[in-house]
Amino acid sequence: MPAETMDELVSLCKRRGFIFPGSEVYGGLQGTYDYGPLGVELKNNLKAAWWRSMIYERDDIEGLDSSILTHKLVLRHSGHEATFTDPLVDSRESKKRYRLDHLLKDQTPAVLEMLAARLEIDNNLSAMVAALLAHEDAGSVLKAARVLEPGENKVGDWTSPRLFNMMFKTTVGPVVNDENYAYLRPETAQGIFVNFKNVVDSTARKLPFGIAQIGKSFRNEITPRNFIFRVREFEQMELEFFCTPGTDEAWHDTWLEARIAWWQSVGLSRERIQVLDVPREDLSHYSKRTYDLMYHYPSIGFEEIEGIANRTDFDLGSHSKNQDSLNLTARVEPNTDSTEKLTIAHPETQKPIVPFVIEPSAGVDRGVLAVLTEAFTKQTLENGETRIVLKLRPHLAPIKVAVIPLAKNREEITSVARALKQRIQALGLGRILYEDTGNIGKAYRRHDEIGTPYCITVDFDTIGQGKDGAVSLTDTVTVRERDSMAQQRVKISDLEGFLREKLR
Amino acid sequence: MPAETMDELVSLCKRRGFIFPGSEVYGGLQGTYDYGPLGVELKNNLKAAWWRSMIYERDDIEGLDSSILTHKLVLRHSGHEATFTDPLVDSRESKKRYRLDHLLKDQTPAVLEMLAARLEIDNNLSAMVAALLAHEDAGSVLKAARVLEPGENKVGDWTSPRLFNMMFKTTVGPVVNDENYAYLRPETAQGIFVNFKNVVDSTARKLPFGIAQIGKSFRNEITPRNFIFRVREFEQMELEFFCTPGTDEAWHDTWLEARIAWWQSVGLSRERIQVLDVPREDLSHYSKRTYDLMYHYPSIGFEEIEGIANRTDFDLGSHSKNQDSLNLTARVEPNTDSTEKLTIAHPETQKPIVPFVIEPSAGVDRGVLAVLTEAFTKQTLENGETRIVLKLRPHLAPIKVAVIPLAKNREEITSVARALKQRIQALGLGRILYEDTGNIGKAYRRHDEIGTPYCITVDFDTIGQGKDGAVSLTDTVTVRERDSMAQQRVKISDLEGFLREKLR
Repeated sequence: MPAETMDELVSLCKRRGFIFPGSEVYGGLQGTYDYGPLGVELKNNLKAAWWRSMIYERDDIEGLDSSILTHKLVLRHSGHEATFTDPLVDSRESKKRYRLDHLLKDQTPAVLEMLAARLEIDNNLSAMVAALLAHEDAGSVLKAARVLEPGENKVGDWTSPRLFNMMFKTTVGPVVNDENYAYLRPETAQGIFVNFKNVVDSTARKLPFGIAQIGKSFRNEITPRNFIFRVREFEQMELEFFCTPGTDEAWHDTWLEARIAWWQSVGLSRERIQVLDVPREDLSHYSKRTYDLMYHYPSIGFEEIEGIANRTDFDLGSHSKNQDSLNLTARVEPNTDSTEKLTIAHPETQKPIVPFVIEPSAGVDRGVLAVLTEAFTKQTLENGETRIVLKLRPHLAPIKVAVIPLAKNREEITSVARALKQRIQALGLGRILYEDTGNIGKAYRRHDEIGTPYCITVDFDTIGQGKDGAVSLTDTVTVRERDSMAQQRVKISDLEGFLREKLR
Repeated sequence: MPAETMDELVSLCKRRGFIFPGSEVYGGLQGTYDYGPLGVELKNNLKAAWWRSMIYERDDIEGLDSSILTHKLVLRHSGHEATFTDPLVDSRESKKRYRLDHLLKDQTPAVLEMLAARLEIDNNLSAMVAALLAHEDAGSVLKAARVLEPGENKVGDWTSPRLFNMMFKTTVGPVVNDENYAYLRPETAQGIFVNFKNVVDSTARKLPFGIAQIGKSFRNEITPRNFIFRVREFEQMELEFFCTPGTDEAWHDTWLEARIAWWQSVGLSRERIQVLDVPREDLSHYSKRTYDLMYHYPSIGFEEIEGIANRTDFDLGSHSKNQDSLNLTARVEPNTDSTEKLTIAHPETQKPIVPFVIEPSAGVDRGVLAVLTEAFTKQTLENGETRIVLKLRPHLAPIKVAVIPLAKNREEITSVARALKQRIQALGLGRILYEDTGNIGKAYRRHDEIGTPYCITVDFDTIGQGKDGAVSLTDTVTVRERDSMAQQRVKISDLEGFLREKLR
């Protein structure tokens, strides 16, 4: 039974050190979160699993790590300066600002019916947002349709909505003026596109091939909410897969399947994933077709965890000079700033072409949230007590093994436990914890709650000083499995093989 | 023989896909760089080695990953708003701006002598900078001392220098005004300090213990330069090690030794590392004492790769409320904004105290540059040809093994090579490349140049179709070692053990 409410996840994350609100001692900075000791391991493990599946296990993808600060011309020619906007509406009374589509989503069906009627269009969210943005007196329409202000329980005194660019800007260099600014990238993708030629030239890649990147992106969300789901600073895992025009639709479907399979490999159940074939009118400016993978989050329901877009030749075309010579299918704005034609040889004709690109773009934080949701389990034990256990796949668990000395002030035992911790550590399986902070029962409960697959206890039997003097237990330890709570004695000499097998 | 000039590194990095200038197709964004397919692996390997040594191999350090966007109060109370500045001077003629200390560093000894004489102080860089900032007519002094404008070969028409804050600012939320801004963090350290209580509460840590973090930081350098050495966006590996006051000096020395040993473990030679005991007058506002580790970079000489500071109780004290009750030794500004006292129990008295902190703070990019410098080797071969070989430690090499089919259009050979690549990949040693892009000699040279420790060739002998029909070579491959260029036949069944041993 996965998590049922966001609150139980937020509480676990704070209590156990997965995720804290950003800048919390100063009241928090809205839309930012800090990953604690366990959160950073979980997040790093998820990113490593993606990187391994993309770059190590395949033979057709290269990695990249481009900078966050991005030249304004990159984001002008990508279309972000003009179109990376959210519709924003103000309440004159409370002075609060809202994202129009979020505001409408929170209204009752009756209000939306009324709004659609007044706008004389269908009751469809994106259509209504577009109509309101185009309407001369949209503020009055919102009021007339009795659109409530959230938390106020009365009709808001709405301004007409307008578009708000979501990119963060900052001045670069010592002179503040209208020219010396750059953006924090709103997606890692553009760093891949503008490095296309650098990667091709240095690796001699031929079509089809991809470039993958993991990194932070920034969006000035008007209303960050739902824990780490909608934040202003977040991390992406993006692949841009370049292919010959004409093969793009087949690759798009191939990647859709591959990505669903990957999310299952990190523990998400297929039933909690839906595929949304994004309606034409909701597509981004660059997209020919997009599949959104929607995951069933607690409290908020199905929301996007990954978008898989067919971006055509729009991006490479937009960032190229001499576009007229490129036979582009996408409509691009003229570019007299770029110094390169972002082309590659056609695999058959060898003539330079601008390839199409399929982009599986996943959210790291949304992935972490989904993995936590799915792993979170509340269990009633035989004795009537409740335990919380995080049934994480072993490769994602923040701590792989806790090595526990049964008596923390007995040097004969602690020295064996410490040496064992070092030996297991050296296997390179991830973080192994030497755990001597409490009694054994408490330690088991804590490690259930943080998802540690195995607890290994070193006791008096291990050092040949067991009560019953059972010599056969000398040099063995108790291995306790998280999910079944089953305990077994394992020879220390067999541990390496046991753990390699189980934690693969 | 390590690299002798920065240029040979820059050239290799661009050609082979380690590092490219940021936003290059638009002429570049000064002070930003993108890590290419090999650079990202090298950088990730270096970061993983640090993380392993700090968090996995020790039992007294926790990890963290805090956000880049940081509340302005964090950086006000840390002292950065007031003191994180560089001295800046303008040329009235060229309209260019320079960092005063860098400008002076580039002058001839005669000019510096003259300047010292005019200021009536010793010829000491930091003293002269301080004196110029305090001088009423410093611009005239600079002119009178005949301080040249770089690249112009004539005395500049200098303004008086002033202090410039190096933090990047950005507006957060939809309303632009004097209040709604945040900073891009100038160091990861502050994210650690403000999470001190969260980490202690969730992990039950006791003194002494540390919190470690790897992540991007941003500084609006006036004159970024020297490739990835001085950039505006860079990555840090920072440890804040908290200890009982009185034990701080011993821990400081312990960490100094540990950090030198770690840099040696990633391939830096001890002779190219110097320890600078930073003179009292050059210490940062928070520091009681700082050791700078200086690495001998090509072209620029000894420059800081890591700073190891004793930050005392300054930071935790500065971010605490009710400071009067804390018995702080550091002088801190009053704080009425914080909601917490950042204290922990004294290990003996159990009373809450503000611990001291030792901070080993290393630059990831500077580390990458040092590792590349040290590994770069130009060799004259017996046949008179020159080869470039990157003698990286195996755990840092971007590609661990290249598996090369001798004939790329012979299915019997390529299928064996592909299967072998997958098998080696599954060992989890890092990136294994299936390499079929050229002839074998060229492949060896390329892999020398990018530091691949082993090339494995699958040939006709492997599949039992060798010229001489040597059955004994069936199911063996040629393993070629990067540094010695020695080749040996190894049984496929022995490869796993061989590689595990060599690439450990």
